[in-house]
Amino acid sequence: MRLFLLLCASLLLADETNKPRYAANGEMLIPVDYRQWQFVGSNMGIGYTEPTAGNTRPPTFKNIYIQPDAFRAFKANGKFPDKTVLVMEVFASGEKASPAKTGRFEEKFLGIEAAVKDESKFPEEKWAYYNFIGSGKALDSAKAFPKESCWSCHNEHATVDNVFVQFYPVLRDK
Amino acid sequence: MRLFLLLCASLLLADETNKPRYAANGEMLIPVDYRQWQFVGSNMGIGYTEPTAGNTRPPTFKNIYIQPDAFRAFKANGKFPDKTVLVMEVFASGEKASPAKTGRFEEKFLGIEAAVKDESKFPEEKWAYYNFIGSGKALDSAKAFPKESCWSCHNEHATVDNVFVQFYPVLRDK
Repeated sequence: MRLFLLLCASLLLADETNKPRYAANGEMLIPVDYRQWQFVGSNMGIGYTEPTAGNTRPPTFKNIYIQPDAFRAFKANGKFPDKTVLVMEVFASGEKASPAKTGRFEEKFLGIEAAVKDESKFPEEKWAYYNFIGSGKALDSAKAFPKESCWSCHNEHATVDNVFVQFYPVLRDK
Repeated sequence: MRLFLLLCASLLLADETNKPRYAANGEMLIPVDYRQWQFVGSNMGIGYTEPTAGNTRPPTFKNIYIQPDAFRAFKANGKFPDKTVLVMEVFASGEKASPAKTGRFEEKFLGIEAAVKDESKFPEEKWAYYNFIGSGKALDSAKAFPKESCWSCHNEHATVDNVFVQFYPVLRDK
């Protein structure tokens, strides 16, 4: 019972710490504990430009997570609430690890990116995009991408409110 | 606050309903609400036999989930407790949905399979394997596979206690 109450208290706290947090210079602080958030879908090798001939780099896996409270709100009314964060975790893919003879699995962890809905920080665009994948080591904080780098494509192609719900079965399915 | 208490109560209840449940004839009942369990990894096209020439079927994605309490126990002591259930959710993969030009995402839901550790039901093998993917409609309950179908390969190749931890970063990573 004590463990259960601790778990409940940590959940209550989690709803707060899951909110986007920013450094004094306005950069977003890297989300933590997102693996305990709601997983919504995975994909492999997704890219938004035509494939390059001769590219031999193994495709990357992306796992997408959303805060549990934002997930419940989305399922209840189809809208992403203000302060929604989606974390995209990136892995290099591996193959032929015993006993697999075909296919690819999630091998080396490369880092995370994030999409954030923050209506007070971004009153016009609402959403901003961040990359915390440093060279060799994750960044503690990151600057929002300029509008034309991610926002425009998300805004044009997302089936729901800048989010590529079309790719994420746990969000997509009724 | 009322919502929070309801959430806590449902969590307490969930730890019980997450346990493997069996029909009167001994078949396992299909796990429910596993998408709220702990996600541990995804893979695409994994197969245990040499690829077949001329196979044009798109590869399937598999998402693997474990009960939250079994996950906490595993992280604490490296052992899967009795009554552990791992659910493997299977999707046909799709491609070229706007704006993706390369890669594959999780498209049509095909169904679930499960691995169960139940030391009283299977005192010798400990683990059993089930497939709930019916033709067109999920099965409400399923019979355990014979030992030689899944158990032997898992027993031989799994890095931890019949579980392919080598493929699942959220279990694998320290």
